[in-house]
Amino acid sequence: QAVSAYKKRPEPCKRLVLYYHVLFDGTNEANATSAIVSNITKLGDFNFGQFVVFDDPMTDDHHLLSPPVARAQGFYFYNMKTTYNAGFAYKLIFNSSDYKGTLNLMGADIIAQEARDISVVGGTGDFFMARGICTLRTDTFQGNAYFRLQMDIKLYECY
Amino acid sequence: QAVSAYKKRPEPCKRLVLYYHVLFDGTNEANATSAIVSNITKLGDFNFGQFVVFDDPMTDDHHLLSPPVARAQGFYFYNMKTTYNAGFAYKLIFNSSDYKGTLNLMGADIIAQEARDISVVGGTGDFFMARGICTLRTDTFQGNAYFRLQMDIKLYECY
Amino acid sequence: QAVSAYKKRPEPCKRLVLYYHVLFDGTNEANATSAIVSNITKLGDFNFGQFVVFDDPMTDDHHLLSPPVARAQGFYFYNMKTTYNAGFAYKLIFNSSDYKGTLNLMGADIIAQEARDISVVGGTGDFFMARGICTLRTDTFQGNAYFRLQMDIKLYECY
Repeated sequence: QAVSAYKKRPEPCKRLVLYYHVLFDGTNEANATSAIVSNITKLGDFNFGQFVVFDDPMTDDHHLLSPPVARAQGFYFYNMKTTYNAGFAYKLIFNSSDYKGTLNLMGADIIAQEARDISVVGGTGDFFMARGICTLRTDTFQGNAYFRLQMDIKLYECY
Repeated sequence: QAVSAYKKRPEPCKRLVLYYHVLFDGTNEANATSAIVSNITKLGDFNFGQFVVFDDPMTDDHHLLSPPVARAQGFYFYNMKTTYNAGFAYKLIFNSSDYKGTLNLMGADIIAQEARDISVVGGTGDFFMARGICTLRTDTFQGNAYFRLQMDIKLYECY
Repeated sequence: QAVSAYKKRPEPCKRLVLYYHVLFDGTNEANATSAIVSNITKLGDFNFGQFVVFDDPMTDDHHLLSPPVARAQGFYFYNMKTTYNAGFAYKLIFNSSDYKGTLNLMGADIIAQEARDISVVGGTGDFFMARGICTLRTDTFQGNAYFRLQMDIKLYECY
């Protein structure tokens, strides 16, 4: 018998909608915020096995050059043989007048889905012991040069 | 004073017993579901430092060719100098009539133990905000070609 | 409006203060407990992209040669372009008369801060389903040969 996914889903105790900007290590190293650290393997045609480490600005609107409200630091890696699909593991690091602290996230970025959920597995500082869900949506994709994700962060456990 | 591990252990709110099949990137790339992405280091004789990325079928019985009920995508890596011992970080991705959603797991696969527990640190969709324990047991080990683990997933926090 | 970080912070249900010793894979491989598994990328001057896998002794005092009370197995990796900053993902593995079980941790080691908090995202055995915070402090840093961190582990959810 299937579980009904959302029957008891509560309201978030906190919500933040941020934008994640990835600039690749290509022709412009001075601006790049991400770098490939492992080679693609021979399994399939979708970058299987490639790890990318990032130190990306997070803004509260669509603009890359808006003042960052946090940084996203961590990695993603491709782990599906038959299509593009990534695993994410990263921290959001806040150090502003609004928030100081971190959120720790991991989960599956199933790129073919319009909205894909990953887990907020912990937090520190202003996000002490937080848990929740972060919904990823592709906001723009400009190939190997630049892509931007919306991260809709909903915390359901707050202290 | 030692804590008694199980004195307050509750009953799971959900339980799933699944089988995880690893086919290596060897002589049969078309069938392989796992690939090595980093070299073994010089520390010890137990693959220290090697990362393996996988996209493995999960079945509800012992048979590799049974219809998959989920996919396990993520990585494991060897991180003990004096014996085989792996760290796991992966997602279980369900997209069936029974379940849609993901479970996110991490923990230590202490291979010398008959049963070893890792943590379910979060979930999405039908597994919204889940937490629990996944007990790994080696079901068969056929060297570098194939191995199979039983994953006994017990969720203790369900929404 | 900023959240007040600590207003509802409870007392820990369990606390452990341990020391983590990293000996590098340098001129003394027999003693080394850590090894580099990926090359530094070209982004910045702070080891961006380098992964280090470790199998480190944990002691309850400052002394490397004290009897270990646990092992820390996992990895850290550098993920900031403009200064040294690491991501951690590891397990603490206890197998003593005091404790049997594991704790699973991940988070940001913001090295410039005197005290930096990471998340305890799960536990097994005597630490069944634990959650909490681990505060890292640098206890000594002797360059590429040896460094030691204090890990002040405070669990706020115990079963």
